[in-house]
Amino acid sequence: MDTALLIDEVRLTPILMADPPLLNTQGVHQPYTPRLVVEVVTRGGVTGIGETYGDGKYLELAAPLAAALPGRPVSDVNGLFALADEVCGDSRAADARVDAGGLRGVQTADKLRLSVVSGFEVACLDALGKAVGLPVHALLGGKVRDRVEYSAYLFYRWAAHPEGGERDDWGAALDPAGVVAQARRFARDHGFSSFKLKGGVLPPDEEIAAVRALAEAFPGQPLRLDPNGAWSVETSLYVAEQLKGVLEYLEDPASGTDAMAAVAAGTDVPLATNMCVTTLAEVPEAFARDAVQVVLSDHHYWGGLHRTRELAAICRLNGVGLSMHSNTHLGISLAAMTHVAATVPNLDYACDSHYPWQTEDVITARHVFRDGRLTVSDAPGLGVELDRDRLAALHRRWLDDDGTMRERDDAAAMRKAEPGWRTPSIPRW
Amino acid sequence: MDTALLIDEVRLTPILMADPPLLNTQGVHQPYTPRLVVEVVTRGGVTGIGETYGDGKYLELAAPLAAALPGRPVSDVNGLFALADEVCGDSRAADARVDAGGLRGVQTADKLRLSVVSGFEVACLDALGKAVGLPVHALLGGKVRDRVEYSAYLFYRWAAHPEGGERDDWGAALDPAGVVAQARRFARDHGFSSFKLKGGVLPPDEEIAAVRALAEAFPGQPLRLDPNGAWSVETSLYVAEQLKGVLEYLEDPASGTDAMAAVAAGTDVPLATNMCVTTLAEVPEAFARDAVQVVLSDHHYWGGLHRTRELAAICRLNGVGLSMHSNTHLGISLAAMTHVAATVPNLDYACDSHYPWQTEDVITARHVFRDGRLTVSDAPGLGVELDRDRLAALHRRWLDDDGTMRERDDAAAMRKAEPGWRTPSIPRW
Repeated sequence: MDTALLIDEVRLTPILMADPPLLNTQGVHQPYTPRLVVEVVTRGGVTGIGETYGDGKYLELAAPLAAALPGRPVSDVNGLFALADEVCGDSRAADARVDAGGLRGVQTADKLRLSVVSGFEVACLDALGKAVGLPVHALLGGKVRDRVEYSAYLFYRWAAHPEGGERDDWGAALDPAGVVAQARRFARDHGFSSFKLKGGVLPPDEEIAAVRALAEAFPGQPLRLDPNGAWSVETSLYVAEQLKGVLEYLEDPASGTDAMAAVAAGTDVPLATNMCVTTLAEVPEAFARDAVQVVLSDHHYWGGLHRTRELAAICRLNGVGLSMHSNTHLGISLAAMTHVAATVPNLDYACDSHYPWQTEDVITARHVFRDGRLTVSDAPGLGVELDRDRLAALHRRWLDDDGTMRERDDAAAMRKAEPGWRTPSIPRW
Repeated sequence: MDTALLIDEVRLTPILMADPPLLNTQGVHQPYTPRLVVEVVTRGGVTGIGETYGDGKYLELAAPLAAALPGRPVSDVNGLFALADEVCGDSRAADARVDAGGLRGVQTADKLRLSVVSGFEVACLDALGKAVGLPVHALLGGKVRDRVEYSAYLFYRWAAHPEGGERDDWGAALDPAGVVAQARRFARDHGFSSFKLKGGVLPPDEEIAAVRALAEAFPGQPLRLDPNGAWSVETSLYVAEQLKGVLEYLEDPASGTDAMAAVAAGTDVPLATNMCVTTLAEVPEAFARDAVQVVLSDHHYWGGLHRTRELAAICRLNGVGLSMHSNTHLGISLAAMTHVAATVPNLDYACDSHYPWQTEDVITARHVFRDGRLTVSDAPGLGVELDRDRLAALHRRWLDDDGTMRERDDAAAMRKAEPGWRTPSIPRW
C-alpha cells in the first residue's frame, strides 16, 4: 500500500469546552466539560480529526494507543480494537471497576476502551477520506440519504452557572412555559420538528405537564422524555399511561434491564435507551426480554462508525429501532454522527444532539441545521476543518484548570448551588 | 463528489466455465456451469469486476439493476439494496417461489436479489478501490490478517463426464483410498492442512470410512464432512457418534432448523451450515435453538462484502462461529472472499473454496495457495485483472450452448449416466 497512507504522528489535545447549566437527574452540567481531540497525521501530510470523552480515565487509555499508531496504515481501523486491547492494559482486571450509576450507562473497561478507539477511528477515516478524496460516508459504503434529521434537545436549566463560566441569553427554563419557549426558539432557529425533554429533574407530574404543554404547542410532532433511569417501574408506568398517544418514545424511564423489561411489559409506549444497552454484552438479554424497542447508538460507546453500522444490522435483524444518542460534543463528532447516520438504512427516528447548546467549537465553520436537518457532506473526509487557534485556546483552558473541570461531575457542579447535594439514589421517584 | 467516480456503464457477461464431474447428493456437476461477470465502468474510465451465479433467474434480475446504475456514485454500495428492491420486481409476490430443496439453501426472491447485488457490490468496490488507490479490504476497514486460510475441498468424483466436456488428470475417487489420494495431491500442490469431504453421495458408513482414512493419513489435522442435509436426525447422530473426536465440524448433516436443532442437541460435534442459515430471516430461530454452531457465510447469498461483515458481527454477538462457503466460482469471487475474510476478526475456521478444481478463469493471473493460504492483496481494488480474451471465449461457449448448461442442474447431469436418476428425497439415508 501507498506509504503516504502510513500514520506518521498522532496528537492528543484535551480541551475544556463551555457548557450551559443544563439540569439532569444527577445534577447540572459543569461550566466546562472535558473532551479529547485526536489528530492523526499521515506520512503524506494529511491530518484527520476525531473526538471523544476527555475525562482522565479516557486520556490514560488514549496515550498508549496514540504511541502505538505511527507506522500503521491509516486505513487499518479494524485493527484498532486488537491494538487497544494489547496496549491499553488488561481489561479483565479493570472490569471490576463497573459503575452502572452514571449517565453513560455501564462503564466497563471494554467500553472505556471502545470510547477511546472511536476517536481514533474517526480521525483515521477522516484522514483516509481526505487522502483519497472520498467523504467518510463513502468509506462506509455510501449514504442512503442526503440529509440527517436531528431532534431538539430540551433541558430544564438555569440562566447561569452559580460559579460563573460563560453566559448565554437563554434564561432559565424550570416549568412548562419555559420548556415550550425553549422549544419554540429551537424550532425557529434550527427548524427542529421533533423534541426531546431531558427529565428526571422535577417530580414526574411536572414533567408530564411540560410534555403536555409541548404537545399543545406542537400538535402532532414527535415528543420524547428521558429521565435517565430515575423512576421506579410503577412511576414509569404511570408516566407512560399519562402520556400515551403523546410520546413517540419514552427513554430510559427506569434503570437496568429488569426494570426496563417490566415497564415495557406494561405499556405500548416504545422504550428507547442509551443506558440499558450501551455494549454488545447487554444486547442479547435486553432484546430477548423485549426490554427496549429503540437503541440510541452513540458511536463513542460502541467503538466508532463501523461498529455503529454493525449495531444497526443487529437492531435490524431483531426488529429493534435505531437512532442516535448525544452527549456534550464538538462539531467533529456531529460530523461523524451525520456521516454514519446517513449510511444506515434503518435510522428510524431523528437523532439527538447537544450541539445547539454548544457555543464553542474547534472547527472553522459551525454546522447549520436547516429544517432540523444537516446535509451530509460530500467533501473528502468528514468535511470539517480544524481551527487551530480555537483548539489552542480551549486546550489552554484545560491546562489552566485547577483540576475541578477535567473530570465531568454533574453532582459536584450541583453542589456549587446546593451544598448538600448528593447523587440521588435510583429510583429517585 | 468527483464526477469521475460516477458509474458510466455496466456490462453483464454470462459465461460457462468448465467444471469437473464432482458428485453430491443431488447428482453431479455439469461439464459447464453458468456464472455472470459484472463490469462496472466509471466516467473516469476505471473498470471494476464482480461475479455471481449465472442461471437465468439471476440474469433476469441483473439486467434491470445494471440499467439503473449509470449516473450513480460507484461508492454507493449501501444504496444497491433499495435500488434492487425498486427495479428488480416485487419480492412479496416472488417469495411464493420458495425452493428449499436445492444445495444453495432456501431460495427466496430476496435471497436471489441479494445474490445478484453481491456481484455488483464487489464490482463497485473493485472500481472504487482502483480509482482511489485502495485495496478492497481497506474499503472495509482494513485487513486484520495478511493471509487467509482455505481448506481442501474433497469430492467423490468420476474420471470424466459421461457426455464429454473438459478432461482433467485427477481420475475417479469413489472410495476411501481415492479420497485420501485426492487429499494428498491437494496438500502437496496447495499446502492445505484442513480437509472437507463433500458427502451425501455414498451410504454413510462408506463416508465414515473415508473420513477415518483421512484422519489416519493426516493425524491431528482438521476434517469436515458435508452431506448437504441428506441424512435423517438418527443417521446424523450415528455419524456424529462414529466420528466424534475426528471431525472439526459436521456440515448440514440434516435439512432444516428442526432437524439441525435435534442433531445439535444430541452431539458435541459442532454443526456448521450453508443451508440451514443462508438468510437473515433464518438467523433468529436457528441461533435461539442452538441449531448451528458455525455459519459458513457466502458473500453472494448475503448480499456482498459489507453484509458479510454484518453477519460476522451477528455471529460474534451470539457466540456462533464463522467461516466461508464456496460454490463453483472464478478468481474474482475468490479475491472478494479473501478481502472480506481478511477484515473479519472472528474468522474461526479455514474457508472453503472450489477454486482448485476450476481450470478456467477470466483473470490474467491465477490465485496461488501457499501453505493452504492466499496472501491478501494490497494492490488497488481486488488486485485481479480481467482477461478479456478468456472472458470472450467463455461467453462464446455460453452463446453457443443449446440451453442445457445455462441452468445448473446436477440431477439432469446425473441422468446422462443414470437415465432413471431423480433428485433424492430428503432424508436420503
